[in-house]
Amino acid sequence: MKTQSASNDTKISVRDKILLTAHDLFYSTGFRATGVDTLIKASKVTKVTFYRHFPSKSLLILAYLHYRHEIWMNWFEASLRRNLAEGQVLSDAISATLCEWFNSSEFHGCAFINASAEAKSEEIENEIKEICCDHKAETKKKIETLAGITDEKTSNDIMMLIDGAIIHAQMGMDTEAVINALKTGLEKLTGQ
Amino acid sequence: MKTQSASNDTKISVRDKILLTAHDLFYSTGFRATGVDTLIKASKVTKVTFYRHFPSKSLLILAYLHYRHEIWMNWFEASLRRNLAEGQVLSDAISATLCEWFNSSEFHGCAFINASAEAKSEEIENEIKEICCDHKAETKKKIETLAGITDEKTSNDIMMLIDGAIIHAQMGMDTEAVINALKTGLEKLTGQ
Repeated sequence: MKTQSASNDTKISVRDKILLTAHDLFYSTGFRATGVDTLIKASKVTKVTFYRHFPSKSLLILAYLHYRHEIWMNWFEASLRRNLAEGQVLSDAISATLCEWFNSSEFHGCAFINASAEAKSEEIENEIKEICCDHKAETKKKIETLAGITDEKTSNDIMMLIDGAIIHAQMGMDTEAVINALKTGLEKLTGQ
Repeated sequence: MKTQSASNDTKISVRDKILLTAHDLFYSTGFRATGVDTLIKASKVTKVTFYRHFPSKSLLILAYLHYRHEIWMNWFEASLRRNLAEGQVLSDAISATLCEWFNSSEFHGCAFINASAEAKSEEIENEIKEICCDHKAETKKKIETLAGITDEKTSNDIMMLIDGAIIHAQMGMDTEAVINALKTGLEKLTGQ
């Protein structure tokens, strides 16, 4: 999947420049490990400008999660639609989509699983957890819609297997083995 | 599952007192968020004593992961054995085991999934990731042995679904819904 890079586009607004920089740092190393000073330096803005757009790090974390949800969901839907339109069955279409993601140099697991784990004891813990659960619920809904699944039990299981696969890929298990297990599992869960 | 608490036992060695304290803190809040000063204070030992037993935090992290693996595996095996001996099918036995864990106040997700995510950029990243993958491999092996599964495709899928369930429970999704989805999924994957 492709995300817009802050460093490659001079036409974006200052707010977006900060947001895209935060996306790259928060997603790759987590928002706890990324301090405001690092964000300001990497965004190449002044402290005053930074705080004018994001009066607190918490607000930037929430903006990042909303932005990440948008780009991930757009990519996921487009890839799944394309694979299904090519005549792939659901298990193949999902596996091919996730395989592309797992093999990209930009893969650092699911931003929402990671954020949910990092949220503990944060001031905005509840807001973060809500966005993360909403992301999973919307992903499930998207799969149901695109694949015509009306049985929620099946889509709950598909989501569970997908998240297990993301975790195994993130843990550094062999990607090919993870994708094979995902495909086999999805076939059994969906009957196709 | 029950872990030995450092505060409730005066007969344990100083090394174990530090290790059990580290277990409780590392597991509940992560090893990055837990500084050496906090560990020394919570263990009620002097700095000299602490460093005599664990010359670096890295060594304590590795000792914690080995200890956690041991107690988790013992609990998991005992619970699964008991449920299977009572005549439960595999999907019920695994679901009942995990349900007990998810509902305990001590549940903070899988220590090895968490540690693997936290390991990035740590000096001992590779050692941590290896222990975490070994833990998953051993859990899979245990399920294969106890349930008489000879097909690795099936046990890979079982592990993937279990880890998805752990993640969903940790994200704060409704435990009953997570367990129901796990049970339904396991039935489809194992055919029982």
